[in-house]
Amino acid sequence: MTIPSATLDLLSQQAIELPSWAFGNSGTRFKVFGQAGVPRDPFEKISDAAQVHKHTGLAPSVALHIPWDKVPSYSDLRRHAEDNGVKLGTVNSNTFQDDDYKLGSVTHSDPRIRQKAIDHHLECIDIMNETGSRDLKIWLADGTNYPGQDDMRSRQDRLHDSLSAIYERLGEHQRLVLEYKFFEPAFYHTDVPDWGTSYAQVSALGDKAVVCLDTGHHAPGTNIEFIVMQLLRLGKLGSFDFNSRFYADDDLIVGAADPFQLFRIILEVVRGGGYANPDVAFMLDQCHNIEKKVPGQIRSVLNVQEMTARALLVDRDALGAAQASGDVLAANGIVMDAFYTDVRGDLADWRESRGLPADPMSAYAASGYQQRIEQERVGGTQAGWGA
Amino acid sequence: MTIPSATLDLLSQQAIELPSWAFGNSGTRFKVFGQAGVPRDPFEKISDAAQVHKHTGLAPSVALHIPWDKVPSYSDLRRHAEDNGVKLGTVNSNTFQDDDYKLGSVTHSDPRIRQKAIDHHLECIDIMNETGSRDLKIWLADGTNYPGQDDMRSRQDRLHDSLSAIYERLGEHQRLVLEYKFFEPAFYHTDVPDWGTSYAQVSALGDKAVVCLDTGHHAPGTNIEFIVMQLLRLGKLGSFDFNSRFYADDDLIVGAADPFQLFRIILEVVRGGGYANPDVAFMLDQCHNIEKKVPGQIRSVLNVQEMTARALLVDRDALGAAQASGDVLAANGIVMDAFYTDVRGDLADWRESRGLPADPMSAYAASGYQQRIEQERVGGTQAGWGA
Amino acid sequence: MTIPSATLDLLSQQAIELPSWAFGNSGTRFKVFGQAGVPRDPFEKISDAAQVHKHTGLAPSVALHIPWDKVPSYSDLRRHAEDNGVKLGTVNSNTFQDDDYKLGSVTHSDPRIRQKAIDHHLECIDIMNETGSRDLKIWLADGTNYPGQDDMRSRQDRLHDSLSAIYERLGEHQRLVLEYKFFEPAFYHTDVPDWGTSYAQVSALGDKAVVCLDTGHHAPGTNIEFIVMQLLRLGKLGSFDFNSRFYADDDLIVGAADPFQLFRIILEVVRGGGYANPDVAFMLDQCHNIEKKVPGQIRSVLNVQEMTARALLVDRDALGAAQASGDVLAANGIVMDAFYTDVRGDLADWRESRGLPADPMSAYAASGYQQRIEQERVGGTQAGWGA
Amino acid sequence: MTIPSATLDLLSQQAIELPSWAFGNSGTRFKVFGQAGVPRDPFEKISDAAQVHKHTGLAPSVALHIPWDKVPSYSDLRRHAEDNGVKLGTVNSNTFQDDDYKLGSVTHSDPRIRQKAIDHHLECIDIMNETGSRDLKIWLADGTNYPGQDDMRSRQDRLHDSLSAIYERLGEHQRLVLEYKFFEPAFYHTDVPDWGTSYAQVSALGDKAVVCLDTGHHAPGTNIEFIVMQLLRLGKLGSFDFNSRFYADDDLIVGAADPFQLFRIILEVVRGGGYANPDVAFMLDQCHNIEKKVPGQIRSVLNVQEMTARALLVDRDALGAAQASGDVLAANGIVMDAFYTDVRGDLADWRESRGLPADPMSAYAASGYQQRIEQERVGGTQAGWGA
Repeated sequence: MTIPSATLDLLSQQAIELPSWAFGNSGTRFKVFGQAGVPRDPFEKISDAAQVHKHTGLAPSVALHIPWDKVPSYSDLRRHAEDNGVKLGTVNSNTFQDDDYKLGSVTHSDPRIRQKAIDHHLECIDIMNETGSRDLKIWLADGTNYPGQDDMRSRQDRLHDSLSAIYERLGEHQRLVLEYKFFEPAFYHTDVPDWGTSYAQVSALGDKAVVCLDTGHHAPGTNIEFIVMQLLRLGKLGSFDFNSRFYADDDLIVGAADPFQLFRIILEVVRGGGYANPDVAFMLDQCHNIEKKVPGQIRSVLNVQEMTARALLVDRDALGAAQASGDVLAANGIVMDAFYTDVRGDLADWRESRGLPADPMSAYAASGYQQRIEQERVGGTQAGWGA
Repeated sequence: MTIPSATLDLLSQQAIELPSWAFGNSGTRFKVFGQAGVPRDPFEKISDAAQVHKHTGLAPSVALHIPWDKVPSYSDLRRHAEDNGVKLGTVNSNTFQDDDYKLGSVTHSDPRIRQKAIDHHLECIDIMNETGSRDLKIWLADGTNYPGQDDMRSRQDRLHDSLSAIYERLGEHQRLVLEYKFFEPAFYHTDVPDWGTSYAQVSALGDKAVVCLDTGHHAPGTNIEFIVMQLLRLGKLGSFDFNSRFYADDDLIVGAADPFQLFRIILEVVRGGGYANPDVAFMLDQCHNIEKKVPGQIRSVLNVQEMTARALLVDRDALGAAQASGDVLAANGIVMDAFYTDVRGDLADWRESRGLPADPMSAYAASGYQQRIEQERVGGTQAGWGA
Repeated sequence: MTIPSATLDLLSQQAIELPSWAFGNSGTRFKVFGQAGVPRDPFEKISDAAQVHKHTGLAPSVALHIPWDKVPSYSDLRRHAEDNGVKLGTVNSNTFQDDDYKLGSVTHSDPRIRQKAIDHHLECIDIMNETGSRDLKIWLADGTNYPGQDDMRSRQDRLHDSLSAIYERLGEHQRLVLEYKFFEPAFYHTDVPDWGTSYAQVSALGDKAVVCLDTGHHAPGTNIEFIVMQLLRLGKLGSFDFNSRFYADDDLIVGAADPFQLFRIILEVVRGGGYANPDVAFMLDQCHNIEKKVPGQIRSVLNVQEMTARALLVDRDALGAAQASGDVLAANGIVMDAFYTDVRGDLADWRESRGLPADPMSAYAASGYQQRIEQERVGGTQAGWGA
Repeated sequence: MTIPSATLDLLSQQAIELPSWAFGNSGTRFKVFGQAGVPRDPFEKISDAAQVHKHTGLAPSVALHIPWDKVPSYSDLRRHAEDNGVKLGTVNSNTFQDDDYKLGSVTHSDPRIRQKAIDHHLECIDIMNETGSRDLKIWLADGTNYPGQDDMRSRQDRLHDSLSAIYERLGEHQRLVLEYKFFEPAFYHTDVPDWGTSYAQVSALGDKAVVCLDTGHHAPGTNIEFIVMQLLRLGKLGSFDFNSRFYADDDLIVGAADPFQLFRIILEVVRGGGYANPDVAFMLDQCHNIEKKVPGQIRSVLNVQEMTARALLVDRDALGAAQASGDVLAANGIVMDAFYTDVRGDLADWRESRGLPADPMSAYAASGYQQRIEQERVGGTQAGWGA
């Protein structure tokens, strides 16, 4: 076996949170293609997410999106999750699907709308108290489409004020996690467009505020692993939203577009002490517009695991020595050696040794779960991202 | 007056076709913000488009989108248009909002679906025969999201076959106009991603097939006016879809993001004989997600007109002499002189001299039309892009 | 006259520092095209820079680059500058043209090379003490070409240590200005690639450390005026390196590629209190690879002035009202009105009223200076950027 | 062994041409870092290139660059190559390092300069007749830095005329291969910026003119394998210049930045019949600015070989079936399976079975060649890219 047992121990600590919304329909502005069997309520989303964990052992928690995942009783939802072997995780707010937010939410010039957006986040914290969630993740669609449309500086100040009001309400062990995104749905400026802005804003709030890095939210060519390194160094990397992209925020299966980039990102997480560190949450945030959802998520967590295994294989001592000697080709070669190592067989064996299927994709296909939900889930409407 | 009368004569020949769908609701994958007063049927769209022409004298025709603009009687629609002072123009097909097209339309591996897509285009040609339209514009959402998902080469061959079947049905004075787009809604490969592909495909069809250049459909940094030059040189520039972008296919008001680029594009149109040339159609294709639709279109056609006026002001003789002498700063300076000239006052005066309002934006606002449609158009549903 | 006198008063306060190296030969990796008459020593560079100021009144100071501009006596150089009507400004360090710096300078893993790079900066501060310069500007070529080549985190820590050592030596009224750049000459990672990194590093140093924003040093699509706003808001915008780009760090004449972007940047400077504020230095940093150098610089400072005039014309009250009312088209229209206003005639008149030539480009051409230097400056070698 | 013998047979047909200039010094506009032992004449370049072939069996020919590789006797050079086990390949012209070409070469408005550039190419063809080379590869630095600097359309027409004159001189079995490049060293427009332009130009010449695709010469985000597919389909893909990039035309070791992209490109070559097809030449074109040259080239050809092996492992039948059934995840999975397979051990065994070293990198290091050239090659000057 190529993978040392110490590495397997590290791999056994890996936990990747799934987004409840990945199991619902999604699409582009041109069309949301509906799929048979998609969940019609948060309980069914949790059930689907639990399938991913059942077959991979990698996804023990599920992130919620409010209001999509509002339920009358969060203790019922929590119990449902636990009955299915998973738990509830991060709570994500939503300030982009209400008509009031057309020109902004927490940055809006109208105090009424700002307060509405703040209140929504306070409600999210109330839900977190019921679900036992630690993290409130905030991604804002706020921005403008035309130069002059609004005053960017005032919006930034209002952003600070609104976040402060939300931050105040956090419990002792809760965190505010601020996501940034290069563009979309705003097309001239975005109020939190880059890691620097997110970092400056969360630093102004306090220790319980950290940054969320979504791997699809950068300008073309951006060296994402550099940002990972920097945020870890600055003590402000709170979580990842993993996904993959060729162009913009394509939200493809993680690792699909550039597996080597995924490897480099995880390599830097490991280097900076962010791996198997509860302060740095691994999460998926992606769409499965044309492929089936549950296997799409299984494929994604496996990709993260495989690249983590490769990253953990890097010979750190040899690498340090090659770097110190200025041997460019040797240092690069040590990293590439790890990347090119095929860890899949070892991982399959190890999986079996832990009572998991060697091939989670096949196991899911053979389980009959997909056919069952496609037959059973007829009628009802789905509340979600692409709704 | 800065603008010579010969230039004004040229400007009086300008005609910009409006897209019927610009008057309906639109949005991003995150949210379509509805607006009061949006049209509920193709007749109301035509009425709105006619307002743009009424106040600017620049937009005498309206492009249709099938099936969004299907009506029981196209002669009724045609008469409605003429009664409002405009005519029906290009017919746009739509092969991206039917579940059958999830993995492709005219490029699909399933012959049934390909035939369905071909038949849709043949229906469009039937409609063109009723509306008197010359151009069938084809933009395809076809593509894949993941490497290996489908065979790109076979899709390209099937694209040729399908387009050939459509081309065959064209009347003597009709044209097939093939649009290209860098990406979206497909995120790995797009079947017509660049001008080269569109050019190769239409060249294989014949003289009645030409290329449509949408100004928002290129990779970052692309020199669009170069493509304009090249397509004119090759005799294959059929039409423009004008809009503006900072990032991807943002579909902002034309000229909003980079007015100098718009100027350079029109400069190259003029240089290459594409201005006031019926073979090169000027069209808008944009969204007004957050601003009002009719004034958004008025602003857009005025921007095109203003930049055309500037482009026509370039001193061609002086420019040629500076270029021939290799005087980089002088040659660039002559072009910049034209761009920096404020033509707005002259255009306002000239507009008035032709019985048009000096300030079309204010004239529309004062006309009461917007208030009227917001009051009257209640109930009904809108069929369209963002529906 | 369109420009109000209060605006002219503001314009009279504008001062743009010229880079001494813009007057020397420059080029690409493929070829440095030599030009007749380029300076052969720092004194000649100052003389050329003084011509720009003489004809425009806009460029009263000249930035130096060490070691390119090393002279036996800085008091002689200072007197030469003053005799020519200008003064010496920012001192730029250079850690990219010594063989020792192949794998890094202040971030190098070898303490000897780091100390050499630190010592170079200390020497620069010594020179600043002689020239009376306030700012030490640091742009670092440091980075790597291949993943794994060096440890990015350690480099970042070493960067902090080295900058701290340099910072310690600053005089009471001196500043350390840290420039960032997306890429080049390193092609995998750059040690100061973005404003966030520069901001984090200078914040860790203290109040006398600030950020330099070079307008050509960003990823494609980056909203630069947003960064201007943010750095002003955070109190860390120290200076600008103005230039223009279509693709990468093209270093074209400022305003040449996207005058509207230049306008928006200056608009945000004005909005944030950075205009006519000595803490925010305006500087050019560009190449004139194929055009003549002195008129290239004249064209550049005029472009900055013209866009500043336009930016100052924005009707702030009307803009605020339109923004507050959520009128997207009106707010954008107010900004565009200012941009489209042709201020060149007014500026020419005003220039004449101040004893400056109405048309600085023509005045320089007519002055005979260019012919003189082309004849006189024969022999000698030029030390500089493209050397 | 994972690799079937039929695949090994295919791999044994692989031949990658090396660029003579990769062995000389190179760099960026900021600095060319000289390396010990670099060749001082074309003979020494050939010797170095032969080392790559000796250790890998992959690089049997060497491309020349004129005038860098001009020698008194090409038959001597040819014999020297043959004595070292390689042969002379493609001849590359150079129209970017002469002062006359500052504003263009074959597109220049001055007929004298155009003729000079044409004559240079005719001289190249004369040399090809002596070296026995088949391909004349033309990469043009032609373009402009500022809008208006020159007339793009006239330049395109002059490009056609000049290429026609060159094409006329080709021998019966010779080819003209026209390379395109997105930008650099021109920063506004480039005369052959994209595959469409190259395709249109070579199509107008005739069957002996084809396109060269350099993998580093595209806009950000471009799907390069699509272009490979399209050019193969159109019968116009003449050759590859392989290298790698994170940002612009970085010219890194092939496969270094995105090995998965290299895999996808080769996959499409195989699919389109371009593999082991003499009409599609594989060539490297890259720099080794900071790493040693010979091992940099060895690493590069090995990367091409490894990715070719992976691409040949794709189960075509299964892939076709998955594609036909519309199973997105399965089809993608089949491609990824091949990519993730570690072929290095098999290739090492196979190499040994053919009398080649299992590990060419180590074998070269152990050979003493590098030490020998570093000691022996002292004095002399190097003519080349970074000179």
